[in-house]
Amino acid sequence: MSIAPPDPTATLLISCPDQKGLVAKIAGFVYSNGGNIIHADQHTDRLAGLFLMRIEWQLEGFNLPRELIAPAFSSIAQPLQAEWRLRFSDDKPRIAVWVSRQDHCLFDLVWRQRAGEFAAEIPLIISNHPHLGTIAEQFGIDYHHIPITAETKLQQEAQQLEILQQYNIDLVILAKYMQVLSSSFLSQFPQVINIHHSFLPAFAGANPYQRAYERGVKIIGATAHYVTQDLDEGPIIEQDVVRVSHRDQVADLIRKGKDLERMVLARAVRLHLQNRVLVYGNRTVVFE
Amino acid sequence: MSIAPPDPTATLLISCPDQKGLVAKIAGFVYSNGGNIIHADQHTDRLAGLFLMRIEWQLEGFNLPRELIAPAFSSIAQPLQAEWRLRFSDDKPRIAVWVSRQDHCLFDLVWRQRAGEFAAEIPLIISNHPHLGTIAEQFGIDYHHIPITAETKLQQEAQQLEILQQYNIDLVILAKYMQVLSSSFLSQFPQVINIHHSFLPAFAGANPYQRAYERGVKIIGATAHYVTQDLDEGPIIEQDVVRVSHRDQVADLIRKGKDLERMVLARAVRLHLQNRVLVYGNRTVVFE
Amino acid sequence: MSIAPPDPTATLLISCPDQKGLVAKIAGFVYSNGGNIIHADQHTDRLAGLFLMRIEWQLEGFNLPRELIAPAFSSIAQPLQAEWRLRFSDDKPRIAVWVSRQDHCLFDLVWRQRAGEFAAEIPLIISNHPHLGTIAEQFGIDYHHIPITAETKLQQEAQQLEILQQYNIDLVILAKYMQVLSSSFLSQFPQVINIHHSFLPAFAGANPYQRAYERGVKIIGATAHYVTQDLDEGPIIEQDVVRVSHRDQVADLIRKGKDLERMVLARAVRLHLQNRVLVYGNRTVVFE
Amino acid sequence: MSIAPPDPTATLLISCPDQKGLVAKIAGFVYSNGGNIIHADQHTDRLAGLFLMRIEWQLEGFNLPRELIAPAFSSIAQPLQAEWRLRFSDDKPRIAVWVSRQDHCLFDLVWRQRAGEFAAEIPLIISNHPHLGTIAEQFGIDYHHIPITAETKLQQEAQQLEILQQYNIDLVILAKYMQVLSSSFLSQFPQVINIHHSFLPAFAGANPYQRAYERGVKIIGATAHYVTQDLDEGPIIEQDVVRVSHRDQVADLIRKGKDLERMVLARAVRLHLQNRVLVYGNRTVVFE
Repeated sequence: MSIAPPDPTATLLISCPDQKGLVAKIAGFVYSNGGNIIHADQHTDRLAGLFLMRIEWQLEGFNLPRELIAPAFSSIAQPLQAEWRLRFSDDKPRIAVWVSRQDHCLFDLVWRQRAGEFAAEIPLIISNHPHLGTIAEQFGIDYHHIPITAETKLQQEAQQLEILQQYNIDLVILAKYMQVLSSSFLSQFPQVINIHHSFLPAFAGANPYQRAYERGVKIIGATAHYVTQDLDEGPIIEQDVVRVSHRDQVADLIRKGKDLERMVLARAVRLHLQNRVLVYGNRTVVFE
Repeated sequence: MSIAPPDPTATLLISCPDQKGLVAKIAGFVYSNGGNIIHADQHTDRLAGLFLMRIEWQLEGFNLPRELIAPAFSSIAQPLQAEWRLRFSDDKPRIAVWVSRQDHCLFDLVWRQRAGEFAAEIPLIISNHPHLGTIAEQFGIDYHHIPITAETKLQQEAQQLEILQQYNIDLVILAKYMQVLSSSFLSQFPQVINIHHSFLPAFAGANPYQRAYERGVKIIGATAHYVTQDLDEGPIIEQDVVRVSHRDQVADLIRKGKDLERMVLARAVRLHLQNRVLVYGNRTVVFE
Repeated sequence: MSIAPPDPTATLLISCPDQKGLVAKIAGFVYSNGGNIIHADQHTDRLAGLFLMRIEWQLEGFNLPRELIAPAFSSIAQPLQAEWRLRFSDDKPRIAVWVSRQDHCLFDLVWRQRAGEFAAEIPLIISNHPHLGTIAEQFGIDYHHIPITAETKLQQEAQQLEILQQYNIDLVILAKYMQVLSSSFLSQFPQVINIHHSFLPAFAGANPYQRAYERGVKIIGATAHYVTQDLDEGPIIEQDVVRVSHRDQVADLIRKGKDLERMVLARAVRLHLQNRVLVYGNRTVVFE
Repeated sequence: MSIAPPDPTATLLISCPDQKGLVAKIAGFVYSNGGNIIHADQHTDRLAGLFLMRIEWQLEGFNLPRELIAPAFSSIAQPLQAEWRLRFSDDKPRIAVWVSRQDHCLFDLVWRQRAGEFAAEIPLIISNHPHLGTIAEQFGIDYHHIPITAETKLQQEAQQLEILQQYNIDLVILAKYMQVLSSSFLSQFPQVINIHHSFLPAFAGANPYQRAYERGVKIIGATAHYVTQDLDEGPIIEQDVVRVSHRDQVADLIRKGKDLERMVLARAVRLHLQNRVLVYGNRTVVFE
């Protein structure tokens, strides 16, 4: 995975029914408009009969102005019944980080954003608790405390959606936000990444570390995934694991898990921001 | 984990209700009889109120003859309500490897035994298929082909038990043996290690690689565990994982999994043979 | 990394000075001849100004007969000053495994070849010792014992080259062959993969495990690389590591290292056989 | 590795020439004074003829008052020619973090200390640059900017030593401090942990990531070690690695390395603070 190049690039993520000539057609589109490809990677899911591709090229010297690239590509994509997404490397998506009480993922994300690891902005933190407001303050990020109860959930989600819109948010990161989002919310704002504190599908649901301890596993994990209406069942972006032993109590699993969680979440966010993750069905292709 | 020392050692694995003075008492037993301890490791499960220990000492210069060590230690262990196991490093447990059609674990185990990695003998292979008989022949190991059907299972298990007894077997390794053992079998022969082709508890049951592919996980695993009457629920001895990507088809997961399976199984067998694994409840302490 | 598809494919590995239009040109070559691309991956080394690509397509339905593909592609490649290599998935390269006294890598390679993991044949084993002849016999592979001394080395290498030619060998694997090959040999037979028993560049040279023990490292490794005239300096194909602790004596490092060595070597060989490794300068691009 | 128990414990780290009866003697000391051992682990380096042990017991119910434990144990240790260190779990060592311009390790250490992962205080940051002063301020930690040039080094080290004394510092952590400490400094303040940005002994010295890139390694690492007068040669406490590929430019190695560095350094610091690291010769025993 390369760092953002000094000069801006365009990236296309494409999927469509497989047929001959797709690479040539797509690369030809870039070339015929004077683009220099710096990354092209392609995958065919032969079981699904699906073609999936990521292609990135330098905008300098490209003959189409930015606003015409999408319309121009559209005329190629439509006959192929392709789904696609175009992104410019100097666009900075706006992220809202949602948290509850734990601060490790929030701290990590904000630090990375400040360190230039994410080509993105983080103007907003939403929490169902007031605790992490001081961190928001410390980093100069707006903090909205929106408590959630079973009764108020739907109403509060309406407020959350309003705030997301107001801040012009492109991506929500659930960084240890311990509430389930409703189907209604997700249908209105589908771009949500969550970090789950287990190696899914092991220990889906509540208290994974407690259950990992009870089962006596020798390895624990964490999973970053897109959120769907089926809890803990969304497309997996990234996973990682760490060894544990009989000496590790539940509190140790939680501590070790925190390190995993922030690493795995950060990698997933970075992959997403670089337009490297293509979802199809309940799976992802990650073009690293 | 150290290799077997050139001169023979005795190892005690002990667990008992926790109380003061246990390390001193057990180490004192060894010292007062002139033993030189080369490994002592102890763990307390404070939730369970349980003391667990492994202690290994050189037999050279030890004042008690081998056959008197167990009776002598018994008088210490009984008042402590301790469970314990004594093993001499130059004892060679006799292993039966059980297989079905896949040969990778069998090959690996036999190669390691020949290479001196296991202080054990492998005089017997049992299979519900005839296919791997040539490997048995190649290495000069007896091969018993005992086909299993739903109807014949209990009767065949009786035959299996008889053969185990006849060969004086101490440990059964299920090296990709694709049959479930009955409760009755396990109550008569409880020392059984199995390799499961997933990172338990994920994908317990059948076809784990197919299901891992369908779920789109980024990591697959393997688990070696003692066999109990609850399928795939026995105490875990060792686990390991390997990364996979969207490029890996089910056949690739199976291929990568084979490498995991033989590594994880071999490590578990070695730990067991060195008397490093103490089971309590459904968990293990592994004194590495 | 996908398994070989049931129907045969052609793979091109290409490197050339970077310029616009290369992906389009190469994909266009495949498409215009009716080929269906199943894998295309491209990398640009911007520091070196180098374009590197792997492209694989199905031969079924391809309009050019096999023997005309290379000449046809040549007319595209020459103006680009490209270096390239064409391979058909149903070609079976012929491998000679070279060993000294240790058998773990040999056993592993032969087992994998038998298990269908390598699309290759292993008709020949060469050793400077007689010890492993019985394994060769066991698997029905010719074994040539060619002892080496400082005085006889050049002369024996002449004999080795003759045997390689006689068996029509495409690739030599040094599977714990503890002799250095001369520059002269390598200039006549350059396709040689070696497994080095350390995480290069740490502990290059002799006795890496002993030196790793003395340095007190917490991790050891193994490295598979192409052999060049600079000992232990050739382009690295694959590396892996394993944790060790103070409990591990040199003999334990050797034992753990054996598992690493065979895994790392096998992965490197497989990547090479699938035409996934592109060497440039002293580096490799591995198109996984 | 277990978390600090709710009630305070004492830990002894001991090394001495091996002889019979050491475990019994040391455990006996604890037991005879009414102590309940919660962790005892022992290692014998048979090559060096050295006995090494860690023993931890609950202070509640222990009959010796804290200030008498060391004198009492001394009378046992002296005849054994033992070196030993006693630590109480509720003692909070005082740490000075030294940095240059990079903030990732500093941030991580401070966050962990705040999160309760370290039983220690961090009252002081020393830097040869002014840049990270704002972080110090953010967390309410004193920041001393002491610029270093070749000419001023010895004089500035005198000032550094004075400040360490003034703040009553027990441990210095070089968290990406890019200056070499003099022998004279180390002889006066020997408790120093450093994080080196490579998998030592590979790429010792300057610019390890650049050199790793040039060598084309497939894995990079980081190493935490005690600082000695031989640069990058001190006893290793902890190491870890991460995979890289041809896609990773030097900037990517640096970014990935940062994650490694903070994880490895944090683990090493935690092990040190829990009195789990015993140095002998140029090696460590880590009682996990």
